[in-house]
Amino acid sequence: MLPRTARLTVLKAICRPHPRSHARSFASSRPCADRAVIYSENGDPSKVLSVLTFPDLPPPGSDSVTIKFLLSPINPADINVIEGVYPSKPIKTGALASSGKGSEEEPVFVGGNEGLAQVTAVGSSVSSPKINDWVVVTKQQHGTWSTRKNVAVTDVALVPDAHKLDEAQAATITASVNPPTAYNMLNDFVRLEKGDWVVQNGANSAVGQAVIQIAAARGLKTINLIRNRENVELLKFQLGQLGATHVLTYDDLSDKSTRGKIKEWTGGKDITLGLNCVGGKETTLMSRLLGQDAHLVSYGAMSKQPLSLPTSLFIFKNLTCHGFWQSRWYKDKTSQERDKLMRTLVNMLADGQVRCCSG
Amino acid sequence: MLPRTARLTVLKAICRPHPRSHARSFASSRPCADRAVIYSENGDPSKVLSVLTFPDLPPPGSDSVTIKFLLSPINPADINVIEGVYPSKPIKTGALASSGKGSEEEPVFVGGNEGLAQVTAVGSSVSSPKINDWVVVTKQQHGTWSTRKNVAVTDVALVPDAHKLDEAQAATITASVNPPTAYNMLNDFVRLEKGDWVVQNGANSAVGQAVIQIAAARGLKTINLIRNRENVELLKFQLGQLGATHVLTYDDLSDKSTRGKIKEWTGGKDITLGLNCVGGKETTLMSRLLGQDAHLVSYGAMSKQPLSLPTSLFIFKNLTCHGFWQSRWYKDKTSQERDKLMRTLVNMLADGQVRCCSG
Repeated sequence: MLPRTARLTVLKAICRPHPRSHARSFASSRPCADRAVIYSENGDPSKVLSVLTFPDLPPPGSDSVTIKFLLSPINPADINVIEGVYPSKPIKTGALASSGKGSEEEPVFVGGNEGLAQVTAVGSSVSSPKINDWVVVTKQQHGTWSTRKNVAVTDVALVPDAHKLDEAQAATITASVNPPTAYNMLNDFVRLEKGDWVVQNGANSAVGQAVIQIAAARGLKTINLIRNRENVELLKFQLGQLGATHVLTYDDLSDKSTRGKIKEWTGGKDITLGLNCVGGKETTLMSRLLGQDAHLVSYGAMSKQPLSLPTSLFIFKNLTCHGFWQSRWYKDKTSQERDKLMRTLVNMLADGQVRCCSG
Repeated sequence: MLPRTARLTVLKAICRPHPRSHARSFASSRPCADRAVIYSENGDPSKVLSVLTFPDLPPPGSDSVTIKFLLSPINPADINVIEGVYPSKPIKTGALASSGKGSEEEPVFVGGNEGLAQVTAVGSSVSSPKINDWVVVTKQQHGTWSTRKNVAVTDVALVPDAHKLDEAQAATITASVNPPTAYNMLNDFVRLEKGDWVVQNGANSAVGQAVIQIAAARGLKTINLIRNRENVELLKFQLGQLGATHVLTYDDLSDKSTRGKIKEWTGGKDITLGLNCVGGKETTLMSRLLGQDAHLVSYGAMSKQPLSLPTSLFIFKNLTCHGFWQSRWYKDKTSQERDKLMRTLVNMLADGQVRCCSG
């Protein structure tokens, strides 16, 4: 099972975590102890998930911070993790309670991979972030469906210029993997200049919509592929409003005249970047639109079909195929690089270049 | 049609090109004028090829050299070029005759892409190569099935230390694309250290045999995949003699116990480079042997089946897929880089690290 780019749902913090907090959070009139959505073994989420109430956390260690979650998204991949079919596996924690569930004797998994949180306490060696700063959790499968937790400072990234955003914007643009995925795929593989062309499938996915907007903000042209459907013209119009240069269905792609049409659009300029979240024969067709020395980047496989490409594309057109996984990006990059990404995305949102992306 | 790595046949020079020449060449008792194997249109080689006799060449231009061919290989791809089904297309020449076939009025194709030649005259601006030096033609589809021709100095590479080699060795190791293909694929994609592992299919092809020998000379370990056949044990033994660490058939690969066996061989070390000239399901199976951050390089498609890979390999194992084409390598590299490659290969052959590779 692969990370699908389907609808992003934002989970409200389970309850207001601490009565002393005056920071913004989703209102709950009744203060309560900390709570987390936990499970002890993989399975159907509706059967294995439960809510655990746990006492006040200890103060953070010298290199850690205490954070309270403001908004924790639910991504389809989170469900796959609970089911046990996702390649990145969480580690059980025994730090929630001194006895029973969540204790060292009975450690549990905490659900959730993404989250926007506010710092409520900092360890003695921590200079940044500071108390009240907003951060996102960048370490994979850290367990974000929790009111509060202590985390190593290296496992979070500061949301810069947070005053420019409200919580939902900050959670969507930074805590979600979708806008960073779109931004990095447009940035890391091919040096694209204004007027260059990008082709993508699954263009109406959350990542696809972010790609359209970020590309448009950079002056890049996009050819966007979607499935045929009722009211397809409405969807084409909506993607056009976001900044899509052209939108085609996979049926259009099978039509031989389409390649000629695309050549007219591009003026014969090579398309050097393709973004794929579908796989299967639609992606084979899309890859034939790519020009010399192009790169095809896969970040999903919604069709559940493999990527099947004629070897001649590799040998004679010098195609290179990569995968992209935002979790690996966070792991491989320095905190400076992560901060820079956050700042860029926040400013794109604040400047109105990118709106929130819905799936 | 793709460049197959099948048997390399060495074409004798059509006849001794010039009576004044004292250089080594395949003996022909009767001097004759220059001749070339030509064709005017694509088609079945047995029907479209003919031999054209042409008068003495003019002296080379200031940046050109006159070369006489000593040995010009026939590669299966040459046949595809004549048939017109190969992506790299030759250009017709009108420089062979002043009238009739091969003249400006009736230009023709000259067959052949690879060739070992000796310099017989140099233009006024040429400092290297010198008269009597051996060179190989590196420009694609230059037409090497000819006794002599004038070529731009940028379209040939000097065979360094030529005294260490005989003609057949020089033609096999340097004029053929196979040993350079093997050398570059082991060099250009992954930084491999002594003791690192490489897996390849089509291991008994000319390129495959060169890979085995060059890898062994570098202290790399190889897992080599071949088709099952009668006397497969004999072939396994022969590849072992060349330096193959392990040889498996594709049938072995389908056996689930094989992955465990390979893990034992490698001590669990990731295999980071895979070389593919087959495509199809055998390559899908092979790609599953690759470890984290591996590169899969395709240089042929003998099964004529596409490369079909699960998207999860790209996303979660960070697989990168490339193609390799020696013709592009020559085109993209500087003459210094081409010279360095030649010197390295010549010395590997002279030192006995690599024998001639037969398909």
